[in-house]
Amino acid sequence: MQVDFNSDMGESFGAWTIGDGVDTELMAFISSANIATGFHAGDPGTMRRTIEQAKRLGVAIGAHPGFRDLVGFGRRHINAPAQELVDDMLYQLGALRELARVQGVALQHFKPHGALYMHLARDEEAARLLVENLQRLEPDLLLYCMPGSVICTIAEELGQPVVREFYADRDYDLSGSIVFTRNVRAHDPDEVAARVVRACQQGLVRTVEGQDLAIEFDSICLHSDTPGALALAEATRTALDRAGIEVRVPR
Amino acid sequence: MQVDFNSDMGESFGAWTIGDGVDTELMAFISSANIATGFHAGDPGTMRRTIEQAKRLGVAIGAHPGFRDLVGFGRRHINAPAQELVDDMLYQLGALRELARVQGVALQHFKPHGALYMHLARDEEAARLLVENLQRLEPDLLLYCMPGSVICTIAEELGQPVVREFYADRDYDLSGSIVFTRNVRAHDPDEVAARVVRACQQGLVRTVEGQDLAIEFDSICLHSDTPGALALAEATRTALDRAGIEVRVPR
Amino acid sequence: MQVDFNSDMGESFGAWTIGDGVDTELMAFISSANIATGFHAGDPGTMRRTIEQAKRLGVAIGAHPGFRDLVGFGRRHINAPAQELVDDMLYQLGALRELARVQGVALQHFKPHGALYMHLARDEEAARLLVENLQRLEPDLLLYCMPGSVICTIAEELGQPVVREFYADRDYDLSGSIVFTRNVRAHDPDEVAARVVRACQQGLVRTVEGQDLAIEFDSICLHSDTPGALALAEATRTALDRAGIEVRVPR
Amino acid sequence: MQVDFNSDMGESFGAWTIGDGVDTELMAFISSANIATGFHAGDPGTMRRTIEQAKRLGVAIGAHPGFRDLVGFGRRHINAPAQELVDDMLYQLGALRELARVQGVALQHFKPHGALYMHLARDEEAARLLVENLQRLEPDLLLYCMPGSVICTIAEELGQPVVREFYADRDYDLSGSIVFTRNVRAHDPDEVAARVVRACQQGLVRTVEGQDLAIEFDSICLHSDTPGALALAEATRTALDRAGIEVRVPR
Repeated sequence: MQVDFNSDMGESFGAWTIGDGVDTELMAFISSANIATGFHAGDPGTMRRTIEQAKRLGVAIGAHPGFRDLVGFGRRHINAPAQELVDDMLYQLGALRELARVQGVALQHFKPHGALYMHLARDEEAARLLVENLQRLEPDLLLYCMPGSVICTIAEELGQPVVREFYADRDYDLSGSIVFTRNVRAHDPDEVAARVVRACQQGLVRTVEGQDLAIEFDSICLHSDTPGALALAEATRTALDRAGIEVRVPR
Repeated sequence: MQVDFNSDMGESFGAWTIGDGVDTELMAFISSANIATGFHAGDPGTMRRTIEQAKRLGVAIGAHPGFRDLVGFGRRHINAPAQELVDDMLYQLGALRELARVQGVALQHFKPHGALYMHLARDEEAARLLVENLQRLEPDLLLYCMPGSVICTIAEELGQPVVREFYADRDYDLSGSIVFTRNVRAHDPDEVAARVVRACQQGLVRTVEGQDLAIEFDSICLHSDTPGALALAEATRTALDRAGIEVRVPR
Repeated sequence: MQVDFNSDMGESFGAWTIGDGVDTELMAFISSANIATGFHAGDPGTMRRTIEQAKRLGVAIGAHPGFRDLVGFGRRHINAPAQELVDDMLYQLGALRELARVQGVALQHFKPHGALYMHLARDEEAARLLVENLQRLEPDLLLYCMPGSVICTIAEELGQPVVREFYADRDYDLSGSIVFTRNVRAHDPDEVAARVVRACQQGLVRTVEGQDLAIEFDSICLHSDTPGALALAEATRTALDRAGIEVRVPR
Repeated sequence: MQVDFNSDMGESFGAWTIGDGVDTELMAFISSANIATGFHAGDPGTMRRTIEQAKRLGVAIGAHPGFRDLVGFGRRHINAPAQELVDDMLYQLGALRELARVQGVALQHFKPHGALYMHLARDEEAARLLVENLQRLEPDLLLYCMPGSVICTIAEELGQPVVREFYADRDYDLSGSIVFTRNVRAHDPDEVAARVVRACQQGLVRTVEGQDLAIEFDSICLHSDTPGALALAEATRTALDRAGIEVRVPR
């Protein structure tokens, strides 16, 4: 039994650090790193250093593009045409690819960030245009997405391989939706770890309504800016190891 | 006899256009387009459209990265470490490469913009670090530069192919330096065209001191934001054609 | 009989000009200039020069703040909390006020730009918070708005003086809504001028449905980035003068 | 005996915090807060919250404008004309003034940040133009500067009141220059506190050469991003209190 474990990395910007120290230690527990590509977070130097670290630790990397919105950290929806958003995402994808290529590292995946992730989960025009472009660019690039989302369905239809995510640090409701909140409450590491192991073994998650929901997924997502993320990651990884569930890249 | 003819393209940003109409028409006269990559000018949509146009016209393209300085249009020197500047340039290079790749277009060259071009002409540490990175990334990528500049010398030493430029719309002095001015005076199209043809045929340019200077170059550079650039380009191209000098990409 | 005539000014950014030449000439026809304040367009130098010009021509000035979105020119809606938007607007208001104050010029008015103007026309929380802040800062500052909009109603309720606008270069429908389009078609100057004079004299505008709509307003708004804006402004001003309608600041 | 104690505050940006928690606690030890104004750090919301906190604690506030360089945190010199820099500084000054005014707070002072502070310490044209503008705007606004710097001399000449600084966490050499380093070493709180008290009482500081230098100053500056800044501030304030030196705003 095996599962991928992904987290957002490289979200510092210039003198401002997010996950400093955290990044460095957290990366030891995951198999796939989503690297911020400069529009909502990350700068070229941070990107280079995050790639270096992932390479050293044998962690696979992917592009994590966001809306062009530094002050909002890519969490605010911006009303923009599909073509504009796709152009922005290809720009960011290429930027990361080049900085990885100079270190001899290939990209494994693509995962939009924050409000852009949610936009593509719902907006058919933007999702389809993105997937069509990925098909032309690199039909093997893994696309991380929410199971059942619009982009997930379109990617499966057009043949782009998807990696369906389970959100370790988010609540689900019975509709299968994640209950997103901006101010994420701190979580108990043991509780999160047990929840993840149960999801892997039984394919079930307890919803906010108190009933179980059946879920299918290929990767566990843990947000590195969740309070206590490092402890959550360590507890989760330890629990997975103990349960004999191998943490490794998809496929 | 043949020569390359290059100009900066795609320097619009969002609703602001530079060379609108100009770009479209000017591109018909050149063989190589330097496409702005978003830090000093250009946005992903403008980059895509400029690549499309170059592809349609059979014009070769290159990355034209600048300092991260939209308000200054990349014309203000920023005091930054070499590694930071190289990271910024690779980021921009990759962004253009991806937007070109999705259209099936490969990059021909690399030419830094404005104050960054001048910085690399003088700063050995930054120039060497850039060329070393280009060697690892793409040892055949043409590097446009000023004959005799630090970066030109380093590229020749390390084996990165260089394209030496002659500046059609800039004055030279006897030291071989270009007399850069921010507010470029308008030039007479016939005068510029004659000057270019003479430089191609005789390898000579009249300096501000009134004497001739011997020059060697592989490409004619005409700045698309020089007042009257379109007329200058047309006159130059017509004069080259009449003189039997073929305008084509280097090598 | 008298009416105010306003237009957006100072929308250049760094090396990029909008309305260059246009601004300079167009300002001669209006009584109130809305000056871009840096978040969607305008930079401190452009702001200073625009204030200088308005002072010279005796044109009243106001702050024209937008969403923080240079690449989108403030035309894209950004989903942000009311307090964040109000903080952004006060920041921009103060920036213009200081640059005006150093020239001995006081601000006459406040008019949000583009998507922010539309947001405040509909969103009660943001509109109320803005007006409450204006009440504390300067209860006499004129607030330009769309007649019948949420912000107009709240301003009247709280006592902030409003200037209701008539959009010379936009189509109306029978509901009284403006038919906004991103790519504004060019308009015939005589037609626009006649339409404005009729609106002033009879309080009526012909809708896209072909019927007349009764309108009340204090100021004519002409967008300086409408194609042919300069000719439209001149024709409008000439027609107003001929009709004996004095163009002057509100009140 | 009395002295002012100032520190940079409000240097967060969007989701990125600097001195979070630190700001809140550090402000209790100082008398004057330099608030970042958005070009190198700080955003309108952070500015509002920092003003609120200063008001609550009775700490005087001033504008702390920097080069337009978020990624470089205002620490990189940008080669720009004097007028452009002054326009940028007035823009930032007004932005803070408005956000303070809506809370009923007046500005006490003006202190440029980082590379801009150093630029004005050396560049006569920019320094003179700034002071001339401050004279027109607010001839009583206190200008914080380095004793003996170009801007200090010009301000004294033109009549703008200056507050000369002593840098608690920087080394001096015998020439009276501060030995600036980007990676500031951590300092021992007791050592720093003793150094400050000695400077206040005897007007002397031990230089890197090991000899004493005579200094005159009106305010102690402690950088809030120096490692261990909170402990340094607390130790310094405690030592000043014990030595009977009153910490209060200048004059």
